[in-house]
This record gives sequence, C-alpha cells and structure tokens, in this order.
Amino acid sequence: MSLAAAEGGWIAIAGLGPGDEALVTPEVDAALAAATDVVGYIPYVVRVAPRAGLMLHPSDNRVELDRAAHALELAAQGRRVVVVSSGDPGVFAMASALFEALEAGPVGWRDIDIRVLPGITAMLAAAARAGAPLGHDFCAINLSDNLKPWSVIEKRLRLAAEADFAMAFYNPRSASRPEGFVRTLSLLRALCGDARPILFARAVTTAQETLHIVSLGQARADMADMRTMVIVGSSRTRIIERARGPILYTPRGIPDEATG
Amino acid sequence: MSLAAAEGGWIAIAGLGPGDEALVTPEVDAALAAATDVVGYIPYVVRVAPRAGLMLHPSDNRVELDRAAHALELAAQGRRVVVVSSGDPGVFAMASALFEALEAGPVGWRDIDIRVLPGITAMLAAAARAGAPLGHDFCAINLSDNLKPWSVIEKRLRLAAEADFAMAFYNPRSASRPEGFVRTLSLLRALCGDARPILFARAVTTAQETLHIVSLGQARADMADMRTMVIVGSSRTRIIERARGPILYTPRGIPDEATG
Repeated sequence: MSLAAAEGGWIAIAGLGPGDEALVTPEVDAALAAATDVVGYIPYVVRVAPRAGLMLHPSDNRVELDRAAHALELAAQGRRVVVVSSGDPGVFAMASALFEALEAGPVGWRDIDIRVLPGITAMLAAAARAGAPLGHDFCAINLSDNLKPWSVIEKRLRLAAEADFAMAFYNPRSASRPEGFVRTLSLLRALCGDARPILFARAVTTAQETLHIVSLGQARADMADMRTMVIVGSSRTRIIERARGPILYTPRGIPDEATG
Repeated sequence: MSLAAAEGGWIAIAGLGPGDEALVTPEVDAALAAATDVVGYIPYVVRVAPRAGLMLHPSDNRVELDRAAHALELAAQGRRVVVVSSGDPGVFAMASALFEALEAGPVGWRDIDIRVLPGITAMLAAAARAGAPLGHDFCAINLSDNLKPWSVIEKRLRLAAEADFAMAFYNPRSASRPEGFVRTLSLLRALCGDARPILFARAVTTAQETLHIVSLGQARADMADMRTMVIVGSSRTRIIERARGPILYTPRGIPDEATG
C-alpha cells in the first residue's frame, strides 16, 4: 500500500541521494508530499521544500538516537514522518539508528508502519562520475572511529586488501581526528603498493563537485574531508586516458591465469 | 551540461533500478526522453516505453561486449544512446563492459561523451525492504563463476567472514551451475555458524516480490534463483520480531569491549 493511502501514523526513512535533485526517486518525492513531519540532520532537512502543513524538525549531527526516538514518538501519535538521510538511508545513515531506537523503545512502537526508501548512495554516485571502479567485487567501510575502534578498521583494511576488493570509504577524514586517514593511506600503500589508483570524489553531483584520480603514492590525507567519498581500486582496476579526462574502471572478470 | 543540450552523439549508461518505476531517477527519465537509441538486455529494454523517433535494440544475455561495441558505434555516428541496466549500471552491470569495449576499440571512440547515470542497485533495494542489514561495513560479491574462478570466490568469502562484513551476493545461483551456491552456503555455515541470519529477497519492488529471513542453518540453495538478492548478516546483525514481520538490521557501532 502506498504511504499516501496508509491510515494512521507512519515513518519513511528516505534517501535524498548525493545532492542533485534529479537523483531523488519519485518514491521519496511522494513520501515527502504525503508527510506531516520531516526529521533529520540540518543540511538534509534544508533540502526539503517547505509547505503549509509540513513541520520541519532539523537537528544537529551526532544525535541520531534522539532524532530516531523523536520520529517514533511522532508516528506513534499518528503523524506521517519522513526521516531524511543523504545518499541511501541504509548505508551508514539513519535506518540503523532508527531500528536501534525501535528495539530499545516501548513495545508499542513495533506496531508502527516503518518503511525504508532507498536512495543513490555516495559511493555509487562517485563511482558513476569516475567510470565504474566498483564494477567487480568491492567493500564499503566507514572510516569514522566514532562508533568503532581503529583496530577493527585496520583489520578490515588488511583483509579487504588480501581479498583484492575495490574499497569505498565513507567519512574518510574528520576535522577532529584527521590522523585516522593518514594511517589508512599509509597502510594501503604498504598493502596495495604505490601504483594503485585512488579516487577522491568531493560533493558529487553538486555545483562544488571535484574529482581527483591519483596513485596511492601521490595521495595525501588532505585530499579528503567529510564531504569526500574515497574509492581505492582493486589490483585489476584500470585507467583509460582521454582528452575528456580519465575513466577509472574495474573489468567484470578475472581470467583463470590471473589467480595463480 | 545536460544530455538534452549536448551536441553530437553520446552514451548514457543508465540504471533502471530494481523494477518499480517509482525508483527510476528523473535523471534517467530525462536521458531516455532525449535518446534516439536504447541498447540493452531484452528484459531491461522492455521496461522502456516505445515512442516515435526512438530505436530499441534489445539483445540476449552474455553478449555484453558486442552490445557495448554496438552502442559505441551508434554514438560515434552521432546517435544519442542510452544503454540500460537494471539496478545500478556500475555494479556487476553494463558500465564495466562498455569501458572494456572502449579500451579495446578505436582510439576515436575516446572522444565520445559517455556518462554513467546511477540507479538503485538490487542490494540496497533488498536491504531497504528487510530493514538495514547493510547499515555497517559490508561487501558485495558476484557469485557467478562465468567470469572468475571458484577459487577467487571462496577466498573472498573466507576473508569477508574473517573481516566480519555483512555480505551481499549478486547472481547467487544459475540454472546451469547450481552447485556453486550449495558450496557457498556450506562454507558460510562453517565460517559464520548456523545461527547467522540470511535474507533471500526475490524480485524486490515488483509484484512478484518475496522476502525470507532464515538462519544459515535453515538456508537451502533452492531458496535463491537468478532474480534473488542474498544478504548474509555480520556477527552483529539483529532481528527485531514484530506482528508486522521481522526487521533485519546491523547496528551502526561496535563497542570497544566487543573487539577483545
């Protein structure tokens, strides 16, 4: 049943995509059109057009569980709530936070109609701009150590390199703890070699978009900030040089002879 | 510059999403509206509405390189070509095939305006339907052994389990070689234990959609076919039981004490 036709309160945890409004799905637009309340981090709520009958509830970063509980309370009162994330809500975003709050909260909340509406996540938008670096097996790692210890990040980087995954990194570098990404680059150089290509894709699909493809040997930590998506190629990722700018892509197959 | 305003031939490699037309981005709709030719695998081309002035070029499966070369030839002649994929074109789909053909083809092809238009890939649509199983670090693996040897798949499964990634599997089971997925399930049970949750999400967002969340111990290979997306949780993935149906999700964080 569509959200517009659903009776009573509901929550739609919706992905707004990477920034360009042409990447917002019609499903998300329809949910916003049917909503009474929009809950989310300030810069995402700003992307929602105000209208009569729509309450906007912007909140600061790092209060995800409070925001999730607020959305659940509103829906339990019969409100129609869209929780907005950038990108896809299920990838390092609000969907998991909402389910954490749901599990920890009153049992009555489990009767709420909750839906996750997918969006174009940053790694896929960045990959599309550069070519197809995630065209073969890959992994996605959140480099923020707010919610997990560095030892876990390091272990995952080592195993991902051994598996020869292309790697997509979310939240590569925070202003408060820039040293984590310095360590990440150093480790990747040791594991993958200096020649491996790395993409820095900042603010993709917005007017501020920048793309840089360099080798790991050339990569510097200050090439990334919190608006940057970083993608490291696998051993098979290639660059096609063109006057129009390089294309970064990973072929679909691995020939038998390449596996030794 | 928008594709509608671009002069001369171009190629847009576009993702149609998992099936529901409400998940096709406006960017992809605009490219289709400006196109003279649509190239792709038969069931994806069928999703494009015919109109005067639009040539449809459906082709069979497993001819991706021929299809890519055909698209490049058309664009080199000045045609405006959309190459359609389901899901996202950069994830186990046509973008890498097109760049393989570009790299192997005439140097003149490198002057063609080629863009990748992202879409909602199957793993994100399936994850959204089930909750948020990919809410923390994860990997995506193509289980088809058409283009890579089983030894590579097995190595990646072992390392992904050791890294404690959630895992999303594309092309889990082909009719011609069903034994690969039997081996995959057996290996995963040995690596992750019988209790680990696994999601079988078939034909997500279409009228034929089915979702099954079971334990690895209960999982059988015939629960998947080529229209099924399979997601295996990490060690921290949880199920919230509800009268409305279970929610499968992975919390955002790993507490320090959990890492030993």
